[in-house]
Amino acid sequence: MSSVRMKGFRERKTLKEVLECLLPVLPRMPPEKVPTVSALGRVAYGDIRAERDVPHFDRAAMDGYAVVAEDTFKCSQENPARLRLVGECVVGKTPEVEVRRGEAAQISTGAPMPRGADAVVMLEYASLGEGYVHVYRPVAPLQNVSCRGEDVKAGDVVVAEGDVIRPQEIGLLLQCGVREISVAAKPRAAIVSTGSELVEAGEEPDVGQVVASNEYMLAALTRIYGGRPVYLGVVPDERDALRAIADKALNFDLAIFSGGTSVGKYDYMPEVVAEVGGRVIAHGLTIRPGGPTAVFLVGRKPVFCLPGFPVAALVAFESVVAPSIRKMLGAKKLDPRPVVEAILARRVPSTLGKLDFLRVKLEESKEGLVAIPLRTTGSGILSSMTRADGVVEIPEDVEGFGEGERVKVKLFPHVF
Amino acid sequence: MSSVRMKGFRERKTLKEVLECLLPVLPRMPPEKVPTVSALGRVAYGDIRAERDVPHFDRAAMDGYAVVAEDTFKCSQENPARLRLVGECVVGKTPEVEVRRGEAAQISTGAPMPRGADAVVMLEYASLGEGYVHVYRPVAPLQNVSCRGEDVKAGDVVVAEGDVIRPQEIGLLLQCGVREISVAAKPRAAIVSTGSELVEAGEEPDVGQVVASNEYMLAALTRIYGGRPVYLGVVPDERDALRAIADKALNFDLAIFSGGTSVGKYDYMPEVVAEVGGRVIAHGLTIRPGGPTAVFLVGRKPVFCLPGFPVAALVAFESVVAPSIRKMLGAKKLDPRPVVEAILARRVPSTLGKLDFLRVKLEESKEGLVAIPLRTTGSGILSSMTRADGVVEIPEDVEGFGEGERVKVKLFPHVF
Repeated sequence: MSSVRMKGFRERKTLKEVLECLLPVLPRMPPEKVPTVSALGRVAYGDIRAERDVPHFDRAAMDGYAVVAEDTFKCSQENPARLRLVGECVVGKTPEVEVRRGEAAQISTGAPMPRGADAVVMLEYASLGEGYVHVYRPVAPLQNVSCRGEDVKAGDVVVAEGDVIRPQEIGLLLQCGVREISVAAKPRAAIVSTGSELVEAGEEPDVGQVVASNEYMLAALTRIYGGRPVYLGVVPDERDALRAIADKALNFDLAIFSGGTSVGKYDYMPEVVAEVGGRVIAHGLTIRPGGPTAVFLVGRKPVFCLPGFPVAALVAFESVVAPSIRKMLGAKKLDPRPVVEAILARRVPSTLGKLDFLRVKLEESKEGLVAIPLRTTGSGILSSMTRADGVVEIPEDVEGFGEGERVKVKLFPHVF
Repeated sequence: MSSVRMKGFRERKTLKEVLECLLPVLPRMPPEKVPTVSALGRVAYGDIRAERDVPHFDRAAMDGYAVVAEDTFKCSQENPARLRLVGECVVGKTPEVEVRRGEAAQISTGAPMPRGADAVVMLEYASLGEGYVHVYRPVAPLQNVSCRGEDVKAGDVVVAEGDVIRPQEIGLLLQCGVREISVAAKPRAAIVSTGSELVEAGEEPDVGQVVASNEYMLAALTRIYGGRPVYLGVVPDERDALRAIADKALNFDLAIFSGGTSVGKYDYMPEVVAEVGGRVIAHGLTIRPGGPTAVFLVGRKPVFCLPGFPVAALVAFESVVAPSIRKMLGAKKLDPRPVVEAILARRVPSTLGKLDFLRVKLEESKEGLVAIPLRTTGSGILSSMTRADGVVEIPEDVEGFGEGERVKVKLFPHVF
């Protein structure tokens, strides 16, 4: 069995290799129906089409007078068109009035156009007196009119497959008469902390013990990326306990184990996963931090063993777990983190053959954004993550970046 | 009373003027205690300090052998130091073994250092045989040791006043023994849709009627920016009804009215708000879309009347409501939207004296990000918002941007 442990670390893979191997195999989550009003942040399952035209009637786009455009064609400031006022069209009501040649009706923005009229003269280009409207500027047919279906036509795709529902999508969908939509079900992620040194966050740790904190960080990340975390608790580095929890974790859509993936004596996880039928996708990645990450598939179910060090766990999550969750959701963008350009404040060396994740803090300057590298030694230095705004990726074939060099900073998923 | 209506639009203010007038007056939300594990996205009220050192004991940073560094000072590949193996230090347990001169103890990453030892020799620079450890490379005192408090010291500020709690803050706080934190209470926002043309989203609209959809979009935005939306429903453009709902809305921390702020005949909102003691901060802004926005203060409580057109409502929300909510939360960044640079795909004209919000779609190209302006005519064209990734602001004193010009794009608050 120890061969499994040893084998993994001899076969470190690049992040790209792992994702190319893993992502195509992952199962897509099934759809579920949710009310449009509660769909914020969900991923559309299939194209969503308008159920009615928007607007669903011709309406005035300006306050003014509904007219027959032709009546105004030859008018001017000196020679206004003189139209008889025949009524008023108000917002929210089907107009009873009809406008014929030589006539006009008062109309408010958003009110339905009266029969007969085909344009709206703006308030400022007309005057009213003794039952007549004087128009000082010609309008073309359909001018200042929002026509039925101008914004969206019934049957149009308003939200495409894999798009994320934002506030504006909620607004548009409701306007289009779509009150319920199909979204990808949220993948349920089992989260387990492994390590004999761990005690639950509520307890006081002895010397040698460490408070379990990764799982709550990983749960928050899972939530942000669209999954539903279920925390299964702390498990000691013991074969039987690990085997039992692995069985339990496989009832979920994916499983995230934190801790227990180095080549140390007590790291049983890789062999436990192998025992429940797991196939090794990678044991060890050429990323830093986060190298001691293992990725398995049990059937098509992904199992991630993330390093125990918090910073390494965070980097590994964003590198392999986050895109997996997005893939299972069917999201168009697997990595939705915004990327900004910045000037590197000082030289940063990097090892060839490693994809380095440099934590940086962003500051404004006259020359633009500046990326200040944070202390990177010691992957346990979680405070480098709390001071950071994002990461700069230094590719495997690059020996580092120089001071003043323009770099791309991937911002942490921001929660307001 | 009609003087109030007319007055407002003669006094259009710039966005900057309005915010300078409004933000300093807004009340800060009181603190509330929440469990650290459920604090994602909340804003810290006051500095949060570590309750214990991290790590809270000296521990090995590598797998290897705990030694007295001095014993290794003169060793080399050819002339290894020979140390007697006296025991083992494992993760999670207080070591019983003590290491004296000439001795070594096996140790795993994360295990507490045994008494006497002051450095760890990495596995790869040592070999084990017949009860002795051979060390081939010198180590300095404290090398490969994470010292107590190295990451964080008890009493250190780990999250500063006004910071947003992200996954990594949750992790670090738990490690520091902080299980409960003070955060700003979420401002409760009353949301009201006004307009006689409106019917609730569940109903089928007649000709002339429009489905209420803004309120759900505004509720989603309120949530994203850290508020707690409470939807009070649709109210017709009638004085008494508006007055009654205004009284109700003033029981909340802020109030957002959608619709009813143009100078049309049926727009009672500004005078209703004046009647309940509201002070006009601005009625009409020099922004586009979103111009017909009114901002009032009733005491120190902000009341926003946003235009009824969805796109205008969205722009107005992000311009004035969002920074107000962030200010009330005490957040450091009032505008947390990420800003990226892009090349404008085509010339866009803009009116002098207006702050224009140009909706753009971002696309990758060889030259970097390209911002493609979306159709901007007709503020009802909500689909321009659903196709957009963000907005480019064209300042009041700029007549537009040219094709190929580098512009800053404010990304929509992204919900994954």
